[in-house]
Amino acid sequence: MNPALSSSVRVISIQRVEDNEIRSVSDKLAIEEPLEISIEYGNTDSRETKTVSVTMRTPGQDKNLALGFLFTEGIISGKSEVVAVEVGVLGSVKVICKVGFKTNLKTSERNFYTTSSCGVCGKSSIDAIKTVSPFKNRPKPELEINLETIFRLPQILRNSQDYFESTGGIHASGLFNSAGELLVLKEDVGRHNALDKLVGEAFERDILPLSKQILLLSGRASFELIQKAVMAGIQAVIAIGAPSSLALELAKESDITLIGFLKENRFNIYTQSENFKIIGL
Amino acid sequence: MNPALSSSVRVISIQRVEDNEIRSVSDKLAIEEPLEISIEYGNTDSRETKTVSVTMRTPGQDKNLALGFLFTEGIISGKSEVVAVEVGVLGSVKVICKVGFKTNLKTSERNFYTTSSCGVCGKSSIDAIKTVSPFKNRPKPELEINLETIFRLPQILRNSQDYFESTGGIHASGLFNSAGELLVLKEDVGRHNALDKLVGEAFERDILPLSKQILLLSGRASFELIQKAVMAGIQAVIAIGAPSSLALELAKESDITLIGFLKENRFNIYTQSENFKIIGL
Repeated sequence: MNPALSSSVRVISIQRVEDNEIRSVSDKLAIEEPLEISIEYGNTDSRETKTVSVTMRTPGQDKNLALGFLFTEGIISGKSEVVAVEVGVLGSVKVICKVGFKTNLKTSERNFYTTSSCGVCGKSSIDAIKTVSPFKNRPKPELEINLETIFRLPQILRNSQDYFESTGGIHASGLFNSAGELLVLKEDVGRHNALDKLVGEAFERDILPLSKQILLLSGRASFELIQKAVMAGIQAVIAIGAPSSLALELAKESDITLIGFLKENRFNIYTQSENFKIIGL
Repeated sequence: MNPALSSSVRVISIQRVEDNEIRSVSDKLAIEEPLEISIEYGNTDSRETKTVSVTMRTPGQDKNLALGFLFTEGIISGKSEVVAVEVGVLGSVKVICKVGFKTNLKTSERNFYTTSSCGVCGKSSIDAIKTVSPFKNRPKPELEINLETIFRLPQILRNSQDYFESTGGIHASGLFNSAGELLVLKEDVGRHNALDKLVGEAFERDILPLSKQILLLSGRASFELIQKAVMAGIQAVIAIGAPSSLALELAKESDITLIGFLKENRFNIYTQSENFKIIGL
């Protein structure tokens, strides 16, 4: 294993289901953690530090990431503008610009993230999320689903997707009941948008929280997607792709069942709530 | 074709290369366009409208998207808070909240995008980007690459990726010279981060602009990735996945060669600069 691997990949123990057998195996997750990127600029007597972005990234090469981000956002434009780069141990990088360098932060014609009190470690991000869901104190119903029903979900999603086949470039979020019936399907180039559309329709129909349904994601499960699921009161998330480390942490802390790499006869259980029962396993 | 398809998918003419043959075919791209989400709130005598996000999305179901976004961000928490939703024709949604409703926009514990003057149509986003690249007036060198070299790139990238094999969840950005040698490889759970890391390393090494190199993306090519390529002076972008409509528009306007769906014996040319020659085709 490459020496840098420990900060980019986490080895965990999961339950692997294949046909109707389940066994514990070890698995590797891509690490996803927040990085706060800030910039110090101004004259000798009036230095200012501003947080420009909090991005969810795989740790390692944080200095590259911060400089590349600031450059591609048009905030810095050459190496001579940068005096030093301070890399913090808890996920922060501060780029210190030379005296007299004026940044176009305020007049930038691009968007960038701003942060208020979002923590710069995963833990505080998770704490922030947990406090805001309007459904956090509601009792949660039990969910029972047949193993064979789980195996059928990807095919149902694919058959119902209007756009993926034709473009190869569209993500889907599907909401299923525990009988495996597709209730809502939304598609978008951005997977967070596909899920926002799904939750937005549930909001309009006034059927939130979605605690009796199962969310199927066509791709990977990132922190941001699990966060949206938590907000909507979803208890069970199944991804066709891989989850990230922070997605798993948030799912655990929120008592959400998280399944990944779903294929027609197998999947991985990353964390399982006591409320979630698989029949036939 | 579903009636909503026209706003989500665009039919275009491309050049398809298979082995050493090239032919014009029609292809479908997922549409990616910006949507501005704003919220109106306050008391009868002091209404305020604030833009909360500009998100790149596939058009359609914009009302769902706006409501879902505001809900999952914790900005609105129930249907009774919303009086009306105004959907603009040019990619904007305004959610009008009832009198007296107080939003936690300022005290939100979450991040969200802010926008300064970023346009709400793709065209103005493209114009904004084009003006900010520090290399926009530099003459661009010619690039020549062998067809067989292009076909080999995905395998070289995959063989060099440390983490994808083990996690299945990591994107890569690779920088190649025209002989097909891998110069820089960066990986991340976020594809924009992988590219930022690559550009950041080039920034540190002071080798920008990257006008003689070829950028290979392990996944899809979004607007945001092409935008970062433009900033770094990259002339040739090859994606293993699909490009979006706005990625293609920006590549065309920036005279960037954009290739997609690269496999070991075929690829699609979405747009080709006169500076970019493929030998053996």
